[in-house]
Amino acid sequence: MAWAAVDGPQPPVPVVEPNMDLKEEQLSTIPLYARIRLATKSDVPFIHKLIHQLAVFEKLGHLVQATEASLSSTLFNSPPFQSFTVFLLEVSPTPLPLHHPPTLSFFPPIHKTFNLTHPIDDPDAGDFLPEGPPGPVVAGFVLFFPNYSTFLAKPGFYVEDLYVREVYRKKGFGKLLMKAVATQAVRLGYGRVEWCVLDWNVNAIRFYEMIGADVLPDWRICRLTVLGFSCEKTSSYREFTIETDGRFWQKK
Amino acid sequence: MAWAAVDGPQPPVPVVEPNMDLKEEQLSTIPLYARIRLATKSDVPFIHKLIHQLAVFEKLGHLVQATEASLSSTLFNSPPFQSFTVFLLEVSPTPLPLHHPPTLSFFPPIHKTFNLTHPIDDPDAGDFLPEGPPGPVVAGFVLFFPNYSTFLAKPGFYVEDLYVREVYRKKGFGKLLMKAVATQAVRLGYGRVEWCVLDWNVNAIRFYEMIGADVLPDWRICRLTVLGFSCEKTSSYREFTIETDGRFWQKK
Repeated sequence: MAWAAVDGPQPPVPVVEPNMDLKEEQLSTIPLYARIRLATKSDVPFIHKLIHQLAVFEKLGHLVQATEASLSSTLFNSPPFQSFTVFLLEVSPTPLPLHHPPTLSFFPPIHKTFNLTHPIDDPDAGDFLPEGPPGPVVAGFVLFFPNYSTFLAKPGFYVEDLYVREVYRKKGFGKLLMKAVATQAVRLGYGRVEWCVLDWNVNAIRFYEMIGADVLPDWRICRLTVLGFSCEKTSSYREFTIETDGRFWQKK
Repeated sequence: MAWAAVDGPQPPVPVVEPNMDLKEEQLSTIPLYARIRLATKSDVPFIHKLIHQLAVFEKLGHLVQATEASLSSTLFNSPPFQSFTVFLLEVSPTPLPLHHPPTLSFFPPIHKTFNLTHPIDDPDAGDFLPEGPPGPVVAGFVLFFPNYSTFLAKPGFYVEDLYVREVYRKKGFGKLLMKAVATQAVRLGYGRVEWCVLDWNVNAIRFYEMIGADVLPDWRICRLTVLGFSCEKTSSYREFTIETDGRFWQKK
């Protein structure tokens, strides 16, 4: 199979996913227009809420330290794809503009129409309106950043968070978000997209395997949490001491 | 415990690790002077050899596609720590200069003297001389890059490769390399250092736990390897089709 790497981003041509053709189906279904676009600093309030919802879903809400201010200061400081990058999923009952000017030069938004058999009741819609009512509603996000494989000598993308709000689940939006990341990886000539899953989350594992991912059975993640820091000046040199959980690199 | 974040790199003051004091020990031991410094593009030939040795050690040598050219084109294109970053471990039987001018402004090299009971016989030393004979010998490397925790709203570092050449193992060089990464994480106010380990590698797991890392038991890595790419122009829109192993996003 040929590998055709593409250097640099494609020209800003919006991408329309197949199945825009409604025809007969349209008679019995309700269209929901979805768009995936790059997030910007002005989207931080929505990203913050989504991160909180994700943590609560994982029963880890008490661990979230992120605030709008800390997200604002650590995200969107580099051009998209070179560092931490967020795609937002927006949906609307009416067609969405094909262009999203603030980020178009970096990433042409992806559009897809979903034909639903039932309307979606979204009681939280009012909290997720980037353009104000009656604009599109933020329904999910994916946060990712470049990683690197020394064996391939190629960057890839690592997906840190993928989240779709509860009322929008099981309709293909998660797959659309993952596809957006993989599409961008392909555009940049990258080799892999990687992420993590909890081993007991059999539904997620089944989904990931279905879309072609390998779940690596024998690798474990190691995490060193840096809790403290002290710095002493000794003669003309500085000594750094890292305190973690009391075991690593304690000052002698 | 207080958390003291440090914004931006420290001033370029070389760091000298403790135990420079040889005194009586010196009489019965052989000093080996070690330095950890930022690698640059000119170090690619050494990094390439080390990656190959690491792959052979893991019995995965046949999977290495990296060449000196592909490493050169994908590494060292951003300032250190903002993207893929390499620390080199160099050793010498004679004291090493405290400064390494090409990278000093980004990272003051870390120096440590190891007192060995036996001299190290390094038959491959001739292949690992960045400054030519009789300069320091490259003994190992660590490749890492920023990752991001949405719960902390903080970057961290992910360690992709940590490798010490065989004749230099079990002397504390691996710990010194990991400490260099963690020290830099602390300097930048980052929250975590993470990496992966094979679940059957009990010696490595014991070492990582000893230095204070948590081995997360229930997370698994998912990997989507992008094998192919095709692009078709359909009316005024572009359709991207990603072929992976035949299951994901095949063209309908």
